[in-house]
Amino acid sequence: MNIFFNALHAPIGAHSSFTLGCLGKNGGLGLEQGGPANENVYVGLEAREGVVYEALPFYAGAEDEASRYDHTKRQAEKTQQILTSFAHADITREFALGTDRWSAGDLKFTIYSLAEGVPDPDNAAAADMKRLLCPAVIAELTIDNTECQRDRRAFFGYGSGRSGDAYNIVEGKGGMRGFAKGQETGIFSDSKSVVPALGFGIGNLLNEKHAFNYNFHLGGTGLMFCHVPAGKKVTFPFAICFYRGGIVTTGMPCSYYYQHYYKSIGDVAQKALKDAAWFKSRAKVADRLLGKKSLNEDQRWMMAHAIRSYYGSTQLLEHKKKPVWVVNEGEYRMMNTFDLTVDQLFFEMKMNPWTVRNELDFFTSRYSYTDKLHFRGGENVYPGGISFTHDMGVRNHFTKPGFSAYELTGLTGCFSHMTHEQLVNWILCAAVYSKGSGDKRWVKQTLPIFKKCLRSMLNRDNPKKSARNGVMALDSSRTGEGAEITTYDSLDESLGQARNNVYIAVKGWAAYLAMEGIFEKHGMVREAEVARDQAQRAAATIASHLTASGYIPAIMGEDFDSRIIPAIEGLVFPWVLGQKQVLREKGPYGNMITALKTHFRTVLQQGVCLYDDGGWKLSSTADNSWLSKIYLCQFVARKVLGIDNPATRKDADAAHRNWLLNDENLRFAWSDQMSSGVAKGSKYYPRGVTSILWLEE
Amino acid sequence: MNIFFNALHAPIGAHSSFTLGCLGKNGGLGLEQGGPANENVYVGLEAREGVVYEALPFYAGAEDEASRYDHTKRQAEKTQQILTSFAHADITREFALGTDRWSAGDLKFTIYSLAEGVPDPDNAAAADMKRLLCPAVIAELTIDNTECQRDRRAFFGYGSGRSGDAYNIVEGKGGMRGFAKGQETGIFSDSKSVVPALGFGIGNLLNEKHAFNYNFHLGGTGLMFCHVPAGKKVTFPFAICFYRGGIVTTGMPCSYYYQHYYKSIGDVAQKALKDAAWFKSRAKVADRLLGKKSLNEDQRWMMAHAIRSYYGSTQLLEHKKKPVWVVNEGEYRMMNTFDLTVDQLFFEMKMNPWTVRNELDFFTSRYSYTDKLHFRGGENVYPGGISFTHDMGVRNHFTKPGFSAYELTGLTGCFSHMTHEQLVNWILCAAVYSKGSGDKRWVKQTLPIFKKCLRSMLNRDNPKKSARNGVMALDSSRTGEGAEITTYDSLDESLGQARNNVYIAVKGWAAYLAMEGIFEKHGMVREAEVARDQAQRAAATIASHLTASGYIPAIMGEDFDSRIIPAIEGLVFPWVLGQKQVLREKGPYGNMITALKTHFRTVLQQGVCLYDDGGWKLSSTADNSWLSKIYLCQFVARKVLGIDNPATRKDADAAHRNWLLNDENLRFAWSDQMSSGVAKGSKYYPRGVTSILWLEE
Repeated sequence: MNIFFNALHAPIGAHSSFTLGCLGKNGGLGLEQGGPANENVYVGLEAREGVVYEALPFYAGAEDEASRYDHTKRQAEKTQQILTSFAHADITREFALGTDRWSAGDLKFTIYSLAEGVPDPDNAAAADMKRLLCPAVIAELTIDNTECQRDRRAFFGYGSGRSGDAYNIVEGKGGMRGFAKGQETGIFSDSKSVVPALGFGIGNLLNEKHAFNYNFHLGGTGLMFCHVPAGKKVTFPFAICFYRGGIVTTGMPCSYYYQHYYKSIGDVAQKALKDAAWFKSRAKVADRLLGKKSLNEDQRWMMAHAIRSYYGSTQLLEHKKKPVWVVNEGEYRMMNTFDLTVDQLFFEMKMNPWTVRNELDFFTSRYSYTDKLHFRGGENVYPGGISFTHDMGVRNHFTKPGFSAYELTGLTGCFSHMTHEQLVNWILCAAVYSKGSGDKRWVKQTLPIFKKCLRSMLNRDNPKKSARNGVMALDSSRTGEGAEITTYDSLDESLGQARNNVYIAVKGWAAYLAMEGIFEKHGMVREAEVARDQAQRAAATIASHLTASGYIPAIMGEDFDSRIIPAIEGLVFPWVLGQKQVLREKGPYGNMITALKTHFRTVLQQGVCLYDDGGWKLSSTADNSWLSKIYLCQFVARKVLGIDNPATRKDADAAHRNWLLNDENLRFAWSDQMSSGVAKGSKYYPRGVTSILWLEE
Repeated sequence: MNIFFNALHAPIGAHSSFTLGCLGKNGGLGLEQGGPANENVYVGLEAREGVVYEALPFYAGAEDEASRYDHTKRQAEKTQQILTSFAHADITREFALGTDRWSAGDLKFTIYSLAEGVPDPDNAAAADMKRLLCPAVIAELTIDNTECQRDRRAFFGYGSGRSGDAYNIVEGKGGMRGFAKGQETGIFSDSKSVVPALGFGIGNLLNEKHAFNYNFHLGGTGLMFCHVPAGKKVTFPFAICFYRGGIVTTGMPCSYYYQHYYKSIGDVAQKALKDAAWFKSRAKVADRLLGKKSLNEDQRWMMAHAIRSYYGSTQLLEHKKKPVWVVNEGEYRMMNTFDLTVDQLFFEMKMNPWTVRNELDFFTSRYSYTDKLHFRGGENVYPGGISFTHDMGVRNHFTKPGFSAYELTGLTGCFSHMTHEQLVNWILCAAVYSKGSGDKRWVKQTLPIFKKCLRSMLNRDNPKKSARNGVMALDSSRTGEGAEITTYDSLDESLGQARNNVYIAVKGWAAYLAMEGIFEKHGMVREAEVARDQAQRAAATIASHLTASGYIPAIMGEDFDSRIIPAIEGLVFPWVLGQKQVLREKGPYGNMITALKTHFRTVLQQGVCLYDDGGWKLSSTADNSWLSKIYLCQFVARKVLGIDNPATRKDADAAHRNWLLNDENLRFAWSDQMSSGVAKGSKYYPRGVTSILWLEE
């Protein structure tokens, strides 16, 4: 297996990441980036015989040396240049959720990450918040010089060239020293044997004879030089820090929540280094999170990768003293994209349910709207109802109330509205939060919104009660003369069109059931009945479309005969909501369940919804597959439908891991949207945490 | 003449510029940039017949259309694309200090700039400060639609692609609307006929049918659409705004001074639009600043260009409630580089003398140091004295007290120390400030520093009084075993070596005289005498080195026989200080004055210190000429030495203007360091304001 893939090492809620692992100048310290920072990262050690330095291959020029030179030739080259890469074959990597360790020669480099619940700011102790939100990652460089009779120098640093604010040396209390790029990113240590140095480039720095000149500030490269005595083994601690002060958003001015506790990147470094032991111990706890025996290695690897990517997109902000939890959308950096929220839901419910409430409340208060509706080709004359925007903004801009950054009018494809899907998503998230959090007060307060949602769902089915079939049939006036789409926005109609889509229909069925449960619990008998009635209509409609060939067409009742896996996706919600009875083939919705099971068995075939490599193809008519959704559907297939076999587990997992290790994908860590195993969109993405469901198996 | 050169349109003290004029994607809204922002700038108008739009050629693809197509072909192409450039030949430009106007077809686009003194914050009225420091530039788009029977759309906007914070629409009081890139740069208007629009690119925006979709936030292009009724002539006002909030510097945390008055880019826009008439009227005052009849057009053009570039580098900061005036060093962005301060001195003394005091005090309190000295090749065992760092930092980082961003140890060339030159520069700046400001209290307070400076100068001449010749002979211990350099850091020894350099020697002579004047005035008879004695020794030494061929070698008494123009540079200081008697050939320093005059006549010859085109070559042995220094030496030659002829005036001016209009230089507006007329360094530079001296002729 290729070990040279980028992985994120991200503080929680800081929308930043130390990304490392892909050969060449493809990693670095990224603050608010939609991809790797593309910096040179230098982790290296003086050779035992002196003269030259060997480094991990994470800088420009290091990526192809292994193929260009054999070991002898490389030794020869060493006489020409002061820095050379360790032979790639001599490098090993141990990769887990909390720990990522590189070993080469006498050097070990370990980076520690957290996967930890964020306490609810309304109830948390300030000290806990301060520590957990510290925008830093702890790393250690261990040099084993026991076999060498010479003092040696090791180093850790990075360079991105000269732009923006200057690289600068920072000194603090307790011997803390380091360097930062402006106020934004930096590397610090509190070891007395570590000295920061700035220069034009790695060559200048390694060749520099005068320590005075480490103070040169015109360049775009910084190193932390580590002194290792002859015959000793030494571990140097580092804090890799990120910071953005002041107001960071437009539209609605917010600061990072961590600004409560840290006034500068130096403050961050001081705290991280002081609490380094805690960070390390919690990283080991994170490793154990994926220790479950039933997981195979491919699953474990993908989960670690996905969770790391999720954290890089998280951003805990503050507006008028209130926390605002934002998950940015990977390379696109849209903020709290609702059709991601609903998938990340399972992870957030496990780690920090309050963030789900925070997102939902914000959707309700600022990002909801009321529309009218039209039948295909008709006028927008029918009453609509409440729905929610696709997102809350993009790249640190909160869009104006009621409008997303993404949704346009007059379209039928990408960038159209997702009105119905986001309505369904709100209901499902709210129901899962209600169930999972036990937050009764919130549910009670929120009942009026649930009622509005029910009305809105009904209107989108049909203005006439008698004509309703439980499935969306009208498009929002927000689309003008256009039509609504789904989260699969760049797929063909099979998953791209919302109206009459079986994927949306099953999610809608789940939403009706979720509402039924809520209404029932609160004695709202009439509403519960309406919701159940709609669920029944939906189930009947869906089941009725099962063809003789054993599948349900993606678009029901229109002339589009595509087969899709996500028909089964929505079944996850009753399962999570504990409505196990509705999932039984002999239960109240047995016809639909059986139809979906039949459908799934029919489509999960090579040439239909399986690639040749065993990877899942979400639609029979499109070469465009979302890994996060595959993970979710794998869970549904195995746990809900009971179809647990190599095709739904190990063959698929192996193929999907291979996709992520495709050369073209290595830079982007975990990516979602794949065409024949190559990420063509949704790169560097947070949504893969749907895989957290695998822990429930 | 090529009219397509970049010029800065810069607010004062905001380290930002709307740079425009070079063909293609080479201008834009730059905040804290060392060069143009390289954005597409769109200024255009719907064609009279509709369908397509014509724009000024300041976007990618527009630069070579004129050469690729004749007018007929361009018409044909119009059917293929919605945006085309006005034919370059049909575009005219009126370029002055305050006003820069483009005209093409029915469109006029005018940008207004200030050249205004900044009031001393300690005494200024807040309202004056607020208005003057407003980080905005006013522009107007005038569309003459009187000949057209159709309503037409015009637009002004820019695009830089998707990175960093999102483009976002901003609305304010009084109908103010606009868009901004994050919180940093933006365009605003208060006209009701102007609507902001965001999109992926210019094509999408011009083709967009739905105003709803102007709200799309994923893109990296913004336009302000202007509605022009049929048969009307309309002028649309714009504010081009810049903003950076919070702490902007490291090392010593500072904010922009304008943060007192403006909390967001929207605040800036509101104020700029409200006071647009004032900005326009002051721009016309700026135009008149260069109205002096004796200036030729080349001079006027270079002065306007240079002053604009200077303002783009200015940055008024605040630290602990105290103002900090910073002039950044063009493309290098070093802060208050002292060997630029001494040249910008004449401009700042004319516009706002308090900034000179501010710089000097900061050099004294934070950026002075005391060294030891060595003779060439010897040990650093001789007492040194006070001197000052080369700069105060770089790219928003204030380096630690006593150290510059630039100076390294162990060198004899570029990046070595400029200890002696900066000492001389402090003395000269302080003397000019003392004389020009009439600030007696400051001079009195500062006498101890002047005394230290005298001692330091003496020590650098020779530890033994009897051996002193008035010229620097010892190098600073800060250079280690190296040697000091001068501001001409990338030139050969003729101007690059400080020790025994005639350029430094004459400046040193001027410094002694300046100190003599100050000490005398304050009854410090002994010190005045020492200073005068040193001036006499210096003058004697310099005069003694006049060779039989009529020149003084660049390095006196060493084996380096180069000829340099800046031998005469230092003569400007006694002139500015009113010490006219010392400049007379029959005065107390007549021998040296005559020698320098002879020297200058000898070297200002083709093949020596003149290029073939009549441009000045600062050194006979190097193809590296600094325009700012040429301007200064032209002034000295004409006004001090009385050598006023085509070679010192119009022939040289024409050549130097041509250099700036060289194709390779067009992007960088005003640049300083030229090799055969091509800017190889010191681009986009503030130092050309030495030309302000021309107003004294």
